Amino acid sequence: KVIWTVLVTILGYASSLPVGDDPLCTAEELAKYKIIFTGKWSQIAFPKQYPLYRPPAQWSSLLGVTHSSDYSMWKKNEYASNGVRDFAEKGEAWVLMKEIEEAGEKIQSVHGIFSAPAISSGTGQTSTELEVHPRHPLVSFVVRIVPSPDWFVGIDSLNLCEGDHWMDEVSVDLFPYDAGTDSGFTFSSPNFATIPQDTVTEITCSSPSHPANSFYYPKLKILPPIAQVTMVKIKKSQLGLSAPFINLPAKSNEIIDSVS
Amino acid sequence: KVIWTVLVTILGYASSLPVGDDPLCTAEELAKYKIIFTGKWSQIAFPKQYPLYRPPAQWSSLLGVTHSSDYSMWKKNEYASNGVRDFAEKGEAWVLMKEIEEAGEKIQSVHGIFSAPAISSGTGQTSTELEVHPRHPLVSFVVRIVPSPDWFVGIDSLNLCEGDHWMDEVSVDLFPYDAGTDSGFTFSSPNFATIPQDTVTEITCSSPSHPANSFYYPKLKILPPIAQVTMVKIKKSQLGLSAPFINLPAKSNEIIDSVS
Repeated sequence: KVIWTVLVTILGYASSLPVGDDPLCTAEELAKYKIIFTGKWSQIAFPKQYPLYRPPAQWSSLLGVTHSSDYSMWKKNEYASNGVRDFAEKGEAWVLMKEIEEAGEKIQSVHGIFSAPAISSGTGQTSTELEVHPRHPLVSFVVRIVPSPDWFVGIDSLNLCEGDHWMDEVSVDLFPYDAGTDSGFTFSSPNFATIPQDTVTEITCSSPSHPANSFYYPKLKILPPIAQVTMVKIKKSQLGLSAPFINLPAKSNEIIDSVS
Repeated sequence: KVIWTVLVTILGYASSLPVGDDPLCTAEELAKYKIIFTGKWSQIAFPKQYPLYRPPAQWSSLLGVTHSSDYSMWKKNEYASNGVRDFAEKGEAWVLMKEIEEAGEKIQSVHGIFSAPAISSGTGQTSTELEVHPRHPLVSFVVRIVPSPDWFVGIDSLNLCEGDHWMDEVSVDLFPYDAGTDSGFTFSSPNFATIPQDTVTEITCSSPSHPANSFYYPKLKILPPIAQVTMVKIKKSQLGLSAPFINLPAKSNEIIDSVS
């Protein structure tokens, strides 16, 4: 059996998924995926202002949704919703969950919500399962970068359906985004609302172009990925459990810092 | 249609569910529940040493499992597993997730894992969905109290099956537990391993019986519940979505503190 492994960079993925243009999915039935999020925010890869205390570098809970192209959780160069703002600034998921549920009730553009536990260091892993449907084949999620003003990583509307079948495995490198709602420049900047609100922008090694920015590395061409996500289709036969488990990859690093 | 609403205190619930004695469940098929966790850790209800800064009072991600009586996530007066220790001390879920997956693979005692996003204040709400099965009708979960040495709230092996049917709704008041792995006495105590490890114990207003303890309120007979959990069965017809949504209760408090 051919295993489809697609390694997509954010650029390639953004250009291959224009807004509202998801091709018809004729795959049969539901598909379940294991989603594994790996933090790669180490002091070696990101030495500048790396947060060591109160709190040390870590990742919030992961909050995601499977949906149709009628729903959008967040989008580059567009304004973040109140829910995404609360989540990116404070890791508070409630408003975003309500927004998603409303989209599910009103326009049936949402199939389901999923979440995975927080990671108490910059380099750990977390995972959960998600379910997609031929009418709701897109996956979006956000994970807050902690500490940070309003920075997050995530996926916007990744299509797991390829014509008449579900992809077996997808891996995506993740890079930091700014939700456009807080003007802090560094991981530990005090809260400072951006008024008027700005759009969601990607943070690169040269943008914002200011030496004080925590991700400003003028000698680099591109930042190393700060995280990675892998989605693996769960085989129906697996273990004969109705919510079967698959093996996770070994954890990349030991936990060295505490969440509090 | 009769709605079964069962309000169980931890005492009543613990005594009605002796170890390894879950009655035969003859309910048909799978059942899905919405699980709503409500933090009630306010400064008014718990004035003593209430954490306001770095970090303020908040709740970790919720990590739960549906299982048979062959599996136990945690149990009062027994030793916490390494996974529960990591989760209760640091909010780090990885080892606990691996323990659960291993129990699912080796002895098929686990149906599925579920998790809900963290709450960035002492009094918010979070929610997710879970699925139970006639051979795996029990629900267990843990939520870490942040900040704290190794304190958590949770449920141990609550049976959602009543003979030939699934309960429609269950609410349980939650009280703090000590995982027995860190000897800190107060919310913000520095890390101090308990060697040898102690068993999981309930923290009450009089135990540990020491004025320095954060929950020591000698004038009270019992602590107010620090949290509550409600599980509501999702009707299959609801909205015609395969992962349907139900309305959540209004949020009890506004978020006043930030997670970082």
